[in-house]
Amino acid sequence: MTDFALWTRAIQARTEVVLTRTLPATSLEPRRLHEAMRYVALGGGKRVRPMLAFAAAEAIGADNALTEAAAGAVELVHVYSLTHDDLPCMDDDDLRRGKPTCHVQYDQATALLVGDALQSAAFEVLAEAGAGAEMIALLARAAGSRGMCGGQAVDIASTGKPLDLAELEFMHIHKTGALIRAAVLLGASSSGTLADPQRAALEHYAKCVGLAFQVMDDVLDAESDTATLGKTAGKDAQQGKATYLTLMSIKEARDYAREQVSDALIAIAPFGELGRRLGEIARFIVERQF
Amino acid sequence: MTDFALWTRAIQARTEVVLTRTLPATSLEPRRLHEAMRYVALGGGKRVRPMLAFAAAEAIGADNALTEAAAGAVELVHVYSLTHDDLPCMDDDDLRRGKPTCHVQYDQATALLVGDALQSAAFEVLAEAGAGAEMIALLARAAGSRGMCGGQAVDIASTGKPLDLAELEFMHIHKTGALIRAAVLLGASSSGTLADPQRAALEHYAKCVGLAFQVMDDVLDAESDTATLGKTAGKDAQQGKATYLTLMSIKEARDYAREQVSDALIAIAPFGELGRRLGEIARFIVERQF
Repeated sequence: MTDFALWTRAIQARTEVVLTRTLPATSLEPRRLHEAMRYVALGGGKRVRPMLAFAAAEAIGADNALTEAAAGAVELVHVYSLTHDDLPCMDDDDLRRGKPTCHVQYDQATALLVGDALQSAAFEVLAEAGAGAEMIALLARAAGSRGMCGGQAVDIASTGKPLDLAELEFMHIHKTGALIRAAVLLGASSSGTLADPQRAALEHYAKCVGLAFQVMDDVLDAESDTATLGKTAGKDAQQGKATYLTLMSIKEARDYAREQVSDALIAIAPFGELGRRLGEIARFIVERQF
Repeated sequence: MTDFALWTRAIQARTEVVLTRTLPATSLEPRRLHEAMRYVALGGGKRVRPMLAFAAAEAIGADNALTEAAAGAVELVHVYSLTHDDLPCMDDDDLRRGKPTCHVQYDQATALLVGDALQSAAFEVLAEAGAGAEMIALLARAAGSRGMCGGQAVDIASTGKPLDLAELEFMHIHKTGALIRAAVLLGASSSGTLADPQRAALEHYAKCVGLAFQVMDDVLDAESDTATLGKTAGKDAQQGKATYLTLMSIKEARDYAREQVSDALIAIAPFGELGRRLGEIARFIVERQF
């Protein structure tokens, strides 16, 4: 196993610990809600956002308890958005992270409340670790209508409509990019105060990584099978969604993702060896199979 | 118009200003989402939670910009919960605050995203006003699975099942009480540091007011008509929901609410004249017709 693979295992394990500690025990009422929250949040996912948070903390100094909270918070926002996104009134999906989606395993009302409560839990874990108002506001903006929720709204509205590259990027910069940016900036802020050039470098890195991630998601959705992805493959085309592959070939899409990763690596060059994990994550994103 | 009525008008106007300023303009993309967020949040509601926040700030000292943010934040959480609660998979209601509910006026996906984005906006407004981690954590806990969302889950699970008074109060202390408590404590904290006896007095007040509010909600749901309430009357009985009126007569329920208000007034007696508005709100809650 490579050094990077060992590191990702360690981050996944630390993320699992934070989430396990943050989410209420299933012995507490309402038990079914707490069981469902744990069902969607624990034991699955690549944990790319926590990886980014920990790696960004390393780029600035060292990670710490606030980094763990930041990693947990962004993952909780991500998991809440998946839970709501899978509901019948949104993407109507049955499979997520290799298991039945929350509304299939439980029911729609529970899935709705699970997502709502996970969003609250994200702010709770961050605030309880002593995050300042600036970090809280950063997460709130990333999650809200000018961030992730706004991207989802554009995604829903544009289903079945042709988008050009600029419109597609607007959607993804919000839908996926905003939370990836928050993961990087919250991780970095947890480790120390950011100088303006550091912040600018990390923002550029996050933007490129976010786009590369989304392009590869589209490629994998088209190329891979459901068992490998752990979610329904070919769903985008089936739902008439605009993806990068409606605008470019798979080869062009892979090349575009690689260009983004090159840009990301250039952006973090000033961090030198401290930015090593950030670089490895960027490369992992274009090489991943799921 | 009484002095209290004038005061409530002023609070409603200030709340409207905070919410108008906090919510993104409808000229910003995604426009339809921002329009829908404003549709549900602006121009309606009694604004009981903002009233409680402003009155609690007065009890401690004076209200200020952070009080306004606290009032806005609790109202945003309340409005998000109404929007989700009205969805077909929850209470499936068509009318709210005298207008079609969000999913009727727009669509279910929009109503889902509106609620999600309003929750983010609540934390955003509080953090941007410089609220400390303790205030953020207080709101997050009140909104989450051990607060409001937890109460909603119990409410959904118990539909059609008989509850005893203890179970009914457990549900309401979470579903309605948690956010009323947050309104009082956030408002007070925005005005100054709370001494332990002050905090205990306000917690007791909030608990009594929360229960009185819910009992009266059940009475009004049974006694009033849809036009007066601005939401569908008689809904609880129709959906087989446990309410106070399945356990007591309307007269007993009114007496019970009055007892809670008496207790609330005793709790805040130590604040003297500074607690006047809190006392007026408690009385308003049992006297209101809608």
